Amino acid sequence: MSERPLTPVLDRVTVPADLKALSDRELRQLADELRAETISAVSVTGGHLGAGLGVVELTVALHAVFSAPRDKIIWDVGHQCYPHKILTGRRDRIRTLRQRDGLSGFTKRSESPYDPFGAAHSSTSISAALGFAVARDLGGEAGDAVAVIGDGAMSAGMAYEALNNAGHLKKRLFVVLNDNEMSIAPPVGAMSSYLSRLYAGAPFQEFKAAAKGAVSLLPPPFQEGARRAKELLKGMTIGGTLFEELGFSYVGPIDGHDMEQLLSVLRTAHDRATGPVLIHALTRKGKGFAPAERAADRGHATGKFDPVTGEQKKPVSNAPSYTKVFAESLLKEAERDDRIVAVTAAMPDGTGLNLFAERFPKRCFDVGIAEQHAVTFSAALAAGGMKPFCALYSTFLQRGYDQVVHDVAIQRLPVRFAIDRAGLVGADGATHAGAFDIAFLANLPGMVVMAAADEAELVHMVATAVAIDDRPSAFRYPRGEGVGVEMPERGTPIEIGRGRIVAEGGRVAILSFGTRLAEVLKARESLSQRGLAPTVADARFAKPLDRDLILRLAREHEALITIEEGAVGGFGSQVAQLLADAGVFDSGLKFRSMVLPDIFIDQASPADMYAVAGMNAPEIEAKVLDTLGVARIAEKRA
Amino acid sequence: MSERPLTPVLDRVTVPADLKALSDRELRQLADELRAETISAVSVTGGHLGAGLGVVELTVALHAVFSAPRDKIIWDVGHQCYPHKILTGRRDRIRTLRQRDGLSGFTKRSESPYDPFGAAHSSTSISAALGFAVARDLGGEAGDAVAVIGDGAMSAGMAYEALNNAGHLKKRLFVVLNDNEMSIAPPVGAMSSYLSRLYAGAPFQEFKAAAKGAVSLLPPPFQEGARRAKELLKGMTIGGTLFEELGFSYVGPIDGHDMEQLLSVLRTAHDRATGPVLIHALTRKGKGFAPAERAADRGHATGKFDPVTGEQKKPVSNAPSYTKVFAESLLKEAERDDRIVAVTAAMPDGTGLNLFAERFPKRCFDVGIAEQHAVTFSAALAAGGMKPFCALYSTFLQRGYDQVVHDVAIQRLPVRFAIDRAGLVGADGATHAGAFDIAFLANLPGMVVMAAADEAELVHMVATAVAIDDRPSAFRYPRGEGVGVEMPERGTPIEIGRGRIVAEGGRVAILSFGTRLAEVLKARESLSQRGLAPTVADARFAKPLDRDLILRLAREHEALITIEEGAVGGFGSQVAQLLADAGVFDSGLKFRSMVLPDIFIDQASPADMYAVAGMNAPEIEAKVLDTLGVARIAEKRA
Repeated sequence: MSERPLTPVLDRVTVPADLKALSDRELRQLADELRAETISAVSVTGGHLGAGLGVVELTVALHAVFSAPRDKIIWDVGHQCYPHKILTGRRDRIRTLRQRDGLSGFTKRSESPYDPFGAAHSSTSISAALGFAVARDLGGEAGDAVAVIGDGAMSAGMAYEALNNAGHLKKRLFVVLNDNEMSIAPPVGAMSSYLSRLYAGAPFQEFKAAAKGAVSLLPPPFQEGARRAKELLKGMTIGGTLFEELGFSYVGPIDGHDMEQLLSVLRTAHDRATGPVLIHALTRKGKGFAPAERAADRGHATGKFDPVTGEQKKPVSNAPSYTKVFAESLLKEAERDDRIVAVTAAMPDGTGLNLFAERFPKRCFDVGIAEQHAVTFSAALAAGGMKPFCALYSTFLQRGYDQVVHDVAIQRLPVRFAIDRAGLVGADGATHAGAFDIAFLANLPGMVVMAAADEAELVHMVATAVAIDDRPSAFRYPRGEGVGVEMPERGTPIEIGRGRIVAEGGRVAILSFGTRLAEVLKARESLSQRGLAPTVADARFAKPLDRDLILRLAREHEALITIEEGAVGGFGSQVAQLLADAGVFDSGLKFRSMVLPDIFIDQASPADMYAVAGMNAPEIEAKVLDTLGVARIAEKRA
Repeated sequence: MSERPLTPVLDRVTVPADLKALSDRELRQLADELRAETISAVSVTGGHLGAGLGVVELTVALHAVFSAPRDKIIWDVGHQCYPHKILTGRRDRIRTLRQRDGLSGFTKRSESPYDPFGAAHSSTSISAALGFAVARDLGGEAGDAVAVIGDGAMSAGMAYEALNNAGHLKKRLFVVLNDNEMSIAPPVGAMSSYLSRLYAGAPFQEFKAAAKGAVSLLPPPFQEGARRAKELLKGMTIGGTLFEELGFSYVGPIDGHDMEQLLSVLRTAHDRATGPVLIHALTRKGKGFAPAERAADRGHATGKFDPVTGEQKKPVSNAPSYTKVFAESLLKEAERDDRIVAVTAAMPDGTGLNLFAERFPKRCFDVGIAEQHAVTFSAALAAGGMKPFCALYSTFLQRGYDQVVHDVAIQRLPVRFAIDRAGLVGADGATHAGAFDIAFLANLPGMVVMAAADEAELVHMVATAVAIDDRPSAFRYPRGEGVGVEMPERGTPIEIGRGRIVAEGGRVAILSFGTRLAEVLKARESLSQRGLAPTVADARFAKPLDRDLILRLAREHEALITIEEGAVGGFGSQVAQLLADAGVFDSGLKFRSMVLPDIFIDQASPADMYAVAGMNAPEIEAKVLDTLGVARIAEKRA
């Protein structure tokens, strides 16, 4: 506690309204204190540091000029919202960020009235701001709408869809383009003609800081999609045509760390705007914290760290992460088969494809935050004779769902979906849960849907996906480390639609799809002590199902319980459909399907989240006992 | 047959390679004959006429200059592909368009090697072309990739995502922008500097035709999204910055009906391009067929018609269409509640919202082909205090799925999804089937999911959706006419999660979700004659389920059969989960779930498609008998 920064001005701020009493000079100091408080907090919790540090001044300026919660300030993605949370009544809980029962790492409507529209997936803010502006003008909630969106988020199609619509509707609306690459130095001439239109009487200071040395500040290769979006922005800025043709007034670029510029521009825009305004602010991710500024990713996401040195306290793990196992397995396959290519959408590190890109730069494609394109591009790569692996998080694959249906499944093209972050993901919470992919993939005709039960299985599933060249396939695996099983030298394709018995037992069969298998085996151990060791099987496939295995389990056991890290409608529902069609229920079977519960589960550790979901070993054991009608309490007492 | 046009040149063309033997003059004549043949064919089949007529010259020119199927010509959406089909070996079947066992109304890989990438949903073609180009350069299939995309399709975010990526990758690639609004008359100066870069030695003819009278040719109000996209394109054209900044060489605009210009530009581009080229062609939808040119929608989609007068042969129907019932019900509700607003994505006519727009222009929003934005915009309208109805076809809602999850469901915002074209849709075939929405909505926490059993139920469900103001809801209804039931004056909200018994019976209960109810009742009639009249219930809700009703049906009957117009994972799976959790299967229940089969069903009449699906009255009757173990053949003989 003694290491907390001194924050005399910040200490006077409980809600944003308190900023109205501060002088511009005090606002400047407030920003410095807010930065120090943000660093201090994230050093304790871990989380998204760089983005917040880049918008400290912008956060202060927006809250000084606009009047939240009446005015709606909408942070795109939400990675950058920690300073906003500190200023909006949540400072006392800021050191609970991303913890169980703590503050969300993103904006969240249910958490605060100052979060008018929650986020976590990118590029939604302009659509949201437009909705608020339109509602206001139709007699809904009063107040201005302000979207703050990063340059990277501008590569997503939905940002364009929203700009296109906003310019047409001509509502008073503010979009702050938080451009943190710092590589943009547009000619003042093109800019000034824009400024003069809206700001005739209010000359801006020259913007000096960003221009020099910009290239050396660029992140290392690979963030191609994001860079493309930036080039596009540069085009806009120079020509000025796009935003203007879309009906926006364009202001900028301004120095997003210069409080005087920010306040001046925002005040003028606030006082004069009658239609949509785009304010282009240049910022520096990680600003003001040397370790973050030095880092290649500018401190994008960090574990707990030393607030002075920036040194991160990394947990030691024994097993490799699933992400790494996937990436290394794919590399091995790609070395033997030059038709294998990899596609991702702004998640090269998160999917492990950075390794692939280093080894095979010409065969690896990061398309930016553009999942719709990623999927259809992959489909055409397959049509053109390649073997594409499209690696996305489960939750982001939702963005490309129509493309999976329309371009991949209907055409039966052999795209391989490597679905990372399947199931509950921990600190990122409900917005990042990979809960729905089994259901929305397994009902597509022709699709093969697999889940790895452990990291060795994942190796084999990568090989299986390579081998499946006549139809689409998907394999899912969770965030985090494997279970420490022995790893095969190389993957061997699994027979399609063939599960495996893991342990023989009696009375009850548990059919697991995915990495709950470890919990199932724990439950089995405990049940064994009661003489109730169940048969345990790993389904491997949600589609096609291992019909013989499932019917045999049903025939030979009194009860059959499925378990999966997904919502209802997926694996268990496929099994139920099979059992119903085969008439198994006609004569009775104690069938249960353990799925994620019908709630959105707040962030915590994955294990804690699965406890909430009722899907850890104790709950599996309880489900077995309940299903068999064993009186647990009595037995436990005995 | 005698009315078929004379087509001496076209008669010499079996495959596109035959065009290589034709002179430019003959190509010009070929285009005229191709136009006549297209009109003649569509007069017999109905279908998308205007789009094809607009690209007749472009089709001829592309096939004259490029060499399909080695070169991949990819028609965006595919509405415009009929002339292409005539030139690519399918002329003999062109009068089977959109008919059962006939040609698809869209491009389709399984139909012809000249359709390298099928379509039907819009804005996928640039992603697809890029995939082919990249595959080629990595040693995959040889040949050029050409995307032909309309200006309307450019409002979709995924088109931008693809341009962004294509410009970066710098592959040789052709995008033909088929701009058919005709309102664009850019300064020649801005254009010529572009031309000079790629085409230094090859001056273009002046483009004269399109400029005058353009405004009067604009379609009537409402196509706002599309018009916004056009303004954006105009911006691009004038400033020239966007395509160029994205790395494309820009050529145009050229007269898309001037064969000389087309051939010249395409030949030059074909011979010289080393990177991505965008060719901007101005065309006229419905070109060359006066009735189409005169029509407000320029003959976008038509029934069978008289090829001389253009008069359409419309079938007479007794019952109103579900679309119209929805639209009129919503209007009535909106007259009493000024918080009701309507949102659609380039489907104002298809969803019936054109009626809403006429009556309440300020409360109706067509955002263009932009489903992602449509959903999130609706979410914010709800957050801002409105009661948004987001009206989309089931198949297009797939484009906004992540937004339904992330922006609507997680935030529990009361967006009302009016889901038209649920289930099998007829002539548009597999790409437009609304098969997956029940599954992908019903597993979202907090969502209310309804399906109307008939048009009167739809009226009540609109009222129910108005009343549900604390969480998201969805109601689905099919394409086509209702069943002719008596209509209520006004809708009455249904109790949430409450189904209804339609007919009491014994032994078997059939629980229907949606408009299969009529077929179920037909089956019941037939079964009654055997003394096997089942109980029939209308579930109304897939979520929340009517637990009491379902458990009672299970308790009181030997068998329970669910039926829905959707794939596995939806209503029947929700019911199975309930029955399993409640232990109903423990002691035996003949449970069956009738869902769409695990195949993509080709176009035919909806009734024929449901026959393929095995979901009409005879198959329902058979399912009942099979489930009960009644020997049908023996009985029928008796």
